[in-house]
Amino acid sequence: MEPKAVAPAVDVIVSEVGPREGTQSIHQTIPTEVKQRWIAALAAAGLREIEVGSFVSARRLPQMLDAPELVRAARRIPGLTVLALAPNAKHAARAFAAGVHTVTMPVSASRMHSEKNIGMSPEEAIEQVRITCAHRDELNNQSRPTVEVGISTAFGCTMEGPVSEDWVMEMAARLAKAGADSIGLSDSTGYANPTQVKRMFKRLQHEIGALAGAAHLHNTRGQGLANVVAALDVGVTTFDSSQGGLGGCPYAPGATGNIVTEDLVFLLEAMGLRTGVDIGRLLEARTLLAQALPDEPLYGHLVDAGLPKGFVAATQARR
Amino acid sequence: MEPKAVAPAVDVIVSEVGPREGTQSIHQTIPTEVKQRWIAALAAAGLREIEVGSFVSARRLPQMLDAPELVRAARRIPGLTVLALAPNAKHAARAFAAGVHTVTMPVSASRMHSEKNIGMSPEEAIEQVRITCAHRDELNNQSRPTVEVGISTAFGCTMEGPVSEDWVMEMAARLAKAGADSIGLSDSTGYANPTQVKRMFKRLQHEIGALAGAAHLHNTRGQGLANVVAALDVGVTTFDSSQGGLGGCPYAPGATGNIVTEDLVFLLEAMGLRTGVDIGRLLEARTLLAQALPDEPLYGHLVDAGLPKGFVAATQARR
Repeated sequence: MEPKAVAPAVDVIVSEVGPREGTQSIHQTIPTEVKQRWIAALAAAGLREIEVGSFVSARRLPQMLDAPELVRAARRIPGLTVLALAPNAKHAARAFAAGVHTVTMPVSASRMHSEKNIGMSPEEAIEQVRITCAHRDELNNQSRPTVEVGISTAFGCTMEGPVSEDWVMEMAARLAKAGADSIGLSDSTGYANPTQVKRMFKRLQHEIGALAGAAHLHNTRGQGLANVVAALDVGVTTFDSSQGGLGGCPYAPGATGNIVTEDLVFLLEAMGLRTGVDIGRLLEARTLLAQALPDEPLYGHLVDAGLPKGFVAATQARR
Repeated sequence: MEPKAVAPAVDVIVSEVGPREGTQSIHQTIPTEVKQRWIAALAAAGLREIEVGSFVSARRLPQMLDAPELVRAARRIPGLTVLALAPNAKHAARAFAAGVHTVTMPVSASRMHSEKNIGMSPEEAIEQVRITCAHRDELNNQSRPTVEVGISTAFGCTMEGPVSEDWVMEMAARLAKAGADSIGLSDSTGYANPTQVKRMFKRLQHEIGALAGAAHLHNTRGQGLANVVAALDVGVTTFDSSQGGLGGCPYAPGATGNIVTEDLVFLLEAMGLRTGVDIGRLLEARTLLAQALPDEPLYGHLVDAGLPKGFVAATQARR
């Protein structure tokens, strides 16, 4: 079954990373059953892609132990593309076995961040992608899983400062050669600006063509949605975000805050771009999350301001 | 003396409205002497335009009684363009007499908002602009003051909902005919989206050419800087903002939050656009404001996140 075929057309894919990136950076643990209800609520709101967890060592991120269970539960939701993160080939194999549609692999352009985040050099991380893609090609699955890479610290690093754009493009080319299905750029540290976002995604498209993937943007300096507008301008059509802005890399000091799914969906829908998401139901999912994390600050403006009077979302208008 | 001639070139003018718009919407009153120190600190940070207060009836906004004094003090700051708001010709005359460089006049596209905000219909407000411009032309000043209009609720109204874009353009044409020096568009209610911002400013430029003025944007739904990127894309070069995001129209329910000057300046400088502003000194001015308003929430991300490691502002780089 091709899950996206039955769903109505969307112009932009909002890929929810909250259940993965959000829950790895907070201090409370959400019970598996609550995560499942939250994921179900996000899917019910119309999100087509959800990154449900990380396949990592239990020692490193014990709150991610339930990833296989989350994947299996999410796979039962019709129309949902289920993603999970895996930092290396061994864990990617576990994610394949659990039944993910897509494994996402973090590869960092900054050597210091790469070592700190996944204990490998960028070259070693690319080699893990190659092994994972070879494994993917050997799988005898009816629906072939995909391997997506986000090049993190692509726009700068909290430890190293500026990162060479040529090096980022060189990595993208190597990742394409390694067999990755999609290669995006991640501003996990909130360093990107709109001029840079346009320039880098244009270069990425030039470098790897149709393999150019998602924009993963943070709102660390309030510039997240500004960078979305820039990325849209150069044809990016998939954006990672997290409900309530949960998230931020635990190994990149001060790098808190994914762009907020609610505010992103509002922005896109207001711009006339269909996301397939029902904003009302998305806010209901947020309520569920807020109840599960009473001590965690959730971000976002739409939840307080509400929709403009007379607002008609693109998804509604063109359904 | 032409104040801007001596200052180094800027690519984008950040017009600070905090001392006017910010202080009209808060519950605390800032002593005049503190406002003066704040304005001096903002100017010392490199801001070229500051709207220092409102000339309005003392009954309506008693905290604005010190406008003449603030104008006189601000006029002593070299290189600073001093703006003040006046809702009608009578108060505009007071502003001229106090010595402003520029009177800003609020004219609302929404009839309901216009009545609520300034007690006039849009047509009556345009007539007040005409009288003010006639008065400006009769003044025998060495440095002719200018009359700037921001068409508020241009992108939608919290009371009326959607506002006719044709009507906004018709108003812009009438205001140009009335003699306004500059006519901008204001999203005082946080309703604008980037697609609309591009379309409307393009239409405005087509309608009134070089008289097309500033973008006055709010961050009510987190979309403020996204709208800035859209406006930059169609050639807008002046943006209103307020330090700490203070502001929001007291007569437009729920419409809180100008875009934050600190985050705006960071965004522009990161994009390679010179604002002339020193971000460190801008944050010092914010500290002064925070001390003056201990009970008022101030907004903005940059103040918490700090500048990216290795960041070089365009103003520094190209000085």
